[in-house]
Amino acid sequence: MKKPLILISNDDGFEAKGLYALVEAAKDFGEIVVVVPDRHRSGVGHCITMDDPLRIELYREEDGIRYYRTNGTPVDCIKFGQKVILRDRHIDLVLSGINHGSNSSVSLLYSGTMAAAIEGCFEGSKAAGFSLLDYAYDADFTTAIHCAKKLIPQILAAELPPQIALNINIPQVPLNEIKGVKITRQTKGYWAEDLEPRKDAFGRTYYWISGYLVDQDHKEDCCQWALTHNYVSVQPVQIDMTAYHCMNNLKFMEE
Amino acid sequence: MKKPLILISNDDGFEAKGLYALVEAAKDFGEIVVVVPDRHRSGVGHCITMDDPLRIELYREEDGIRYYRTNGTPVDCIKFGQKVILRDRHIDLVLSGINHGSNSSVSLLYSGTMAAAIEGCFEGSKAAGFSLLDYAYDADFTTAIHCAKKLIPQILAAELPPQIALNINIPQVPLNEIKGVKITRQTKGYWAEDLEPRKDAFGRTYYWISGYLVDQDHKEDCCQWALTHNYVSVQPVQIDMTAYHCMNNLKFMEE
Repeated sequence: MKKPLILISNDDGFEAKGLYALVEAAKDFGEIVVVVPDRHRSGVGHCITMDDPLRIELYREEDGIRYYRTNGTPVDCIKFGQKVILRDRHIDLVLSGINHGSNSSVSLLYSGTMAAAIEGCFEGSKAAGFSLLDYAYDADFTTAIHCAKKLIPQILAAELPPQIALNINIPQVPLNEIKGVKITRQTKGYWAEDLEPRKDAFGRTYYWISGYLVDQDHKEDCCQWALTHNYVSVQPVQIDMTAYHCMNNLKFMEE
Repeated sequence: MKKPLILISNDDGFEAKGLYALVEAAKDFGEIVVVVPDRHRSGVGHCITMDDPLRIELYREEDGIRYYRTNGTPVDCIKFGQKVILRDRHIDLVLSGINHGSNSSVSLLYSGTMAAAIEGCFEGSKAAGFSLLDYAYDADFTTAIHCAKKLIPQILAAELPPQIALNINIPQVPLNEIKGVKITRQTKGYWAEDLEPRKDAFGRTYYWISGYLVDQDHKEDCCQWALTHNYVSVQPVQIDMTAYHCMNNLKFMEE
């Protein structure tokens, strides 16, 4: 049987520990090609590079896996995988991550990791983004690798509708404390951000974004609930953002 | 009666003709504050700036309207409006645009214009992004201004559910050819992009993103249909990206 073709990207860049954790989890299940940003690109959402020339280079080749890095965003990396590196080949699965940090609730919209997965599903590939609830640079990926190894072959075997990306978040606890897998919906919430003013060396004001996620939901079918109760959260995400529930109530008069 | 407070942003930058078109359309309906990027930031999606210090400056004050520009993304601009410039005030309406170019179908996900509107609706403001189907730098905004002037007071008066942003696209035709307003859903589609290789002055390869939108839908209730038939498309957009229709079919075995 033909090995599945798996394209891997991330938003933490080519040196991230989580990238190598994802390769470790996926390598037995297909032919792997890695295309990742040449630096940290967290929080860039679905950004594409329109104003700058894009470049790509092969920076590593190991165990039959080619690793490319680009000066583009995670979404640009997926386009490079689809249109340049794997041009004319069907990509069975696009994986992104393993992100250093949660992508639950509305973080999904800001996430470069999930944007890569979402981009991946546009043209008929299965897609999943993995995130570990640990922002640390040297986070321990033992539990995450174990869970990803269980899930990746199941995703490859699953019957999924087209244009669906799975948003998979994994609690940072020892494996024996993981209670199982929950299929979840997106938790209602927002980032209560602050723009903290500071002074630079020349006395000019600048700002850093800081903040925390506000859970407005607290329901058992949500990703946040699953994660705080030590479940792996698997959330199907769609491209269609239409608010169908309010279409009928909208009336805008013509002239 | 208290004047509504209206925050305006865009993704085409502080000099864009479409920005001044939106101010022109909105200025009679409330107190206006403008916070926009200091350069062209199209296609940056929901990107936020996490790795660089953010700065903001007042660059213009005219007819009682303050105009600020930042080195951040459209979403950063909304955060500056909410957390710094208008801190502790309720923003009634966040407007974004008028974008030079369509944001129909899946362009919604790449759009900085719509990301600003979506960010705007997170914390209880009404929100709408306006886009004109004309990418030209010096596009004629006559029809778009007329339509926006009709729609903005209706949006202010409308009863909308929380956390909804309106994605409003306006055909580039003379006003008398506009057939009316249609409430639409997001057209199924994707960008058939190519990464075109070129050589720089040193013989090294670089790439530009180019492409076109593929309509996979062609239905009468979609934004693309409305726009190609000279209707203004008003599309309610939600933050929740959960694919509810496939939640029940997903099964991932535990250990």
